[in-house]
Amino acid sequence: MPEQEVDAGAPVHADGAVPAGLLDAFWRYERALMADDVPELDALFTDGPSTLRGDAGGLLVGHDAIAAFRRGRGGAPKRRIAAVHVRVLGDDAAVVVAELAPRTGGRGQQTQVWRRGAVGWQVLVAHVANPAPAVDARIWRTVGTPLVRGAAEGPLVGKRLAVKDLFAVAGHRIGAGVPEYLAHAVVQQHTAPSVRALLEAGADLTGIAHTDEFAYSIAGANPHHGTPPNARVPGALPGGSSSGPASAVALGQADIGLATDTGGSIRVPASYQGLWGLRTTHGRIARKGLLPLAPSFDTIGWLTRDRAVLAACSRVSAVGAPAVPAPDRFVTAPGLLAGLDGTVRRAFEAWTHRLGDVGQVDLGDVAAAQEAFRVVQAHEAWQADGAWLTAHPGAVSGAVAARFEAAADVLDEEADLARFELEDHRRRFTRALQGAVLLLPSAASVAPQATADAAAVDAVRTQTLRLTCVAGILGAPALSAPLLEIGGAPLGVCLVGPRHSDDALIHLAASLR
Amino acid sequence: MPEQEVDAGAPVHADGAVPAGLLDAFWRYERALMADDVPELDALFTDGPSTLRGDAGGLLVGHDAIAAFRRGRGGAPKRRIAAVHVRVLGDDAAVVVAELAPRTGGRGQQTQVWRRGAVGWQVLVAHVANPAPAVDARIWRTVGTPLVRGAAEGPLVGKRLAVKDLFAVAGHRIGAGVPEYLAHAVVQQHTAPSVRALLEAGADLTGIAHTDEFAYSIAGANPHHGTPPNARVPGALPGGSSSGPASAVALGQADIGLATDTGGSIRVPASYQGLWGLRTTHGRIARKGLLPLAPSFDTIGWLTRDRAVLAACSRVSAVGAPAVPAPDRFVTAPGLLAGLDGTVRRAFEAWTHRLGDVGQVDLGDVAAAQEAFRVVQAHEAWQADGAWLTAHPGAVSGAVAARFEAAADVLDEEADLARFELEDHRRRFTRALQGAVLLLPSAASVAPQATADAAAVDAVRTQTLRLTCVAGILGAPALSAPLLEIGGAPLGVCLVGPRHSDDALIHLAASLR
Repeated sequence: MPEQEVDAGAPVHADGAVPAGLLDAFWRYERALMADDVPELDALFTDGPSTLRGDAGGLLVGHDAIAAFRRGRGGAPKRRIAAVHVRVLGDDAAVVVAELAPRTGGRGQQTQVWRRGAVGWQVLVAHVANPAPAVDARIWRTVGTPLVRGAAEGPLVGKRLAVKDLFAVAGHRIGAGVPEYLAHAVVQQHTAPSVRALLEAGADLTGIAHTDEFAYSIAGANPHHGTPPNARVPGALPGGSSSGPASAVALGQADIGLATDTGGSIRVPASYQGLWGLRTTHGRIARKGLLPLAPSFDTIGWLTRDRAVLAACSRVSAVGAPAVPAPDRFVTAPGLLAGLDGTVRRAFEAWTHRLGDVGQVDLGDVAAAQEAFRVVQAHEAWQADGAWLTAHPGAVSGAVAARFEAAADVLDEEADLARFELEDHRRRFTRALQGAVLLLPSAASVAPQATADAAAVDAVRTQTLRLTCVAGILGAPALSAPLLEIGGAPLGVCLVGPRHSDDALIHLAASLR
Repeated sequence: MPEQEVDAGAPVHADGAVPAGLLDAFWRYERALMADDVPELDALFTDGPSTLRGDAGGLLVGHDAIAAFRRGRGGAPKRRIAAVHVRVLGDDAAVVVAELAPRTGGRGQQTQVWRRGAVGWQVLVAHVANPAPAVDARIWRTVGTPLVRGAAEGPLVGKRLAVKDLFAVAGHRIGAGVPEYLAHAVVQQHTAPSVRALLEAGADLTGIAHTDEFAYSIAGANPHHGTPPNARVPGALPGGSSSGPASAVALGQADIGLATDTGGSIRVPASYQGLWGLRTTHGRIARKGLLPLAPSFDTIGWLTRDRAVLAACSRVSAVGAPAVPAPDRFVTAPGLLAGLDGTVRRAFEAWTHRLGDVGQVDLGDVAAAQEAFRVVQAHEAWQADGAWLTAHPGAVSGAVAARFEAAADVLDEEADLARFELEDHRRRFTRALQGAVLLLPSAASVAPQATADAAAVDAVRTQTLRLTCVAGILGAPALSAPLLEIGGAPLGVCLVGPRHSDDALIHLAASLR
């Protein structure tokens, strides 16, 4: 490692004699941090499961988790130590509070509890706070205080709204997660009715939040503006494509995320971040002013922390729409769960077991249905975005680019055939369910780490889409409820009900635990 | 105090036997916090000067400072404790890390080091991190990532710009710190040339930042959107009227604040928050697209953390303007310092003493000059805003409202007489200075606490305006350099040079320490 210049000239304020070696260890740590010398940093933290390190990204418990975080982050922000405060707790324990002066301005604080053991001084507990940016550019594109004020009265007064960057907001462009698209976009003249409904119910529009590129992903990663953080699982993917609204709501920067769900884009981030999320009945919420991905499956919905807020969003947005009751007859589809990871299957099965009277249905060959769904979605996605993508090579990246490339090759005849097959699958699903509420995990796993390799993310994606495609094919409402947790990471339970049972599903879920 | 409901059911993870009484004390503290029971909170923190408490607002040192903070804040945000981690450091010392679930969403962390002494368990060190909002509404009105992208090349590439809410930005309104004014404002069609110059030099426009109401104050307080925080002195006023840009730059949320200075609105926040700030030569920077306050004194300038960035702002914004050298002959005006607080005067005199060869001048009756300045400023301010204020009673508040009320009573004849007198003062100042650089404190005090009473803030204001009016009357450039500190709080040194010596002053200041 190259020697880093660290200015160790900060004033040190102590409440007693500083134990020998403590400050040496403190400055050794600081030099290692500035040099991103991960082995040295690891050595200066207490080995074992008790070590703690927290920052705005969450609390890491145990040396292993902390070491993994360090390996993935690519170095800490450059900074100067402005002042050091030592509070001596004994010969072998002390707190060192450092006032941080980051190179990019502002002040931060680092609180470390040090202990001296057989290998010398080590950090047992660390708490790091860096100054917040003006806006988290991984989550938001534009923010106001508010950007658009809502009506003075209504059921959503005081609620802050994050709108996915696919909806028209008068005076703003649609960016669709693709900077080059944004650069060429026109300023919208009218606000989408789905946005207006929430404003008229009193919600204030806080800002426009990011999406995966053209919403053609469920991961939540974005190379252009950075991947939004998962508010519940440090270092994990946020879930997509409604990643920005989901992270904004989970972090408390908004109360409502207005989003879309084509293949899982509301249910997956809801599951990954412990939120309520509703994919509405296909066609229930007018899609005017929404950039399409695959109109046969595109739906509008919401992400919230609070079930009652979700209920209000659905109510005010679907005025005049049919209201179908949801039977409290629940079923699961064991065949759909067979391929799932054991921990997910067991957690879900234990939950349905607690629930009591849950029937079982056979949905038949869901893998074939998923493939037909994929083909139709790809065909429509290329119809929506292919011309633009052809004119702007390189504008999208990675997995999304590969997906569009495959979509370009789907023939009209293939898509027609797949549409025909989907009718069969839809009829079979409907017959099997007989109007019951289908229960299934909202995703095939908890949120993967953002550093997971592309193959691992893709494998999880395929499994998750097998679960989510059922509601997509049925055009049925699907509610993700934040009811499960696996090793501290949230996992949603999904309720798929009859068409237009949206409000009833939300009501029904109130009794679930 | 009413009993508060605190859910004490959070899981507790400990690395050993938890010492008796520790968790009782922890939950007692939590209940007191939720009830805002300040005496109980004070009792649970170690008495004395060593106790530490830090959050995003800064680090407070000593029980007194922490207790004063508690008395002024009006309660902590409501929250639930999601999990508790105890790390035992001995029989009488432990760290308690609490994962916080604020009622408004997101996750926070509270790290406390507890010690048991004669009076039982008490907190010696506390570090609290609450989740950041989407945007700090005390500082910003609108934020983008960026809001407007700057040129791809130029001396300011990579610099983030905060524009005071008095400048025209195409597609946005001017709010002037007054919500009712904003509500009636038109969308600007053209961007002010002073903004354009920075964009063309490569700066990205991050957002539009708040000002005191109609910029008619130097305090930085604003009742409508909250007073921006002082990034350097916890709980202190930020200085105004360029409060938003100053806090944004000092907190590292921007690199450049584009601002205005009529009576001190750049120099005072620069002084209060340890920034570089330049009030430019009157007329040097075109004021097109700027909402006026008092055109005889209104100037445009910048706030930065970095002297070189300030130099670049000045250079790119004044292309073609005259460049007058600044003599390195320094003078002070002892008569101007006579009324100052002893600590400020001594700190400034010690600094000029270290500087060496500094002459002395007599500026005569500056109090009379200040009064003439006040009358002309008031008269022009009423001309600028009086009609609107009359049509919108109650739109501005407090000290600003009182100032406008007094301004309404200034007769044209009084203003004419004051203008005539100002000519005399200007000639006298010019003769006394003989082209030297006048050194003086940028403000009469360090930043007062935001909770200080109106009379105290007004007294400081009058003293500060006596200092700042000299450059205003001369139409001369005035550079505030962050060179002094009193008890940890910054204080600027102001260099007033000959007209159009703006760039030379910035260059000259490079050698000052």
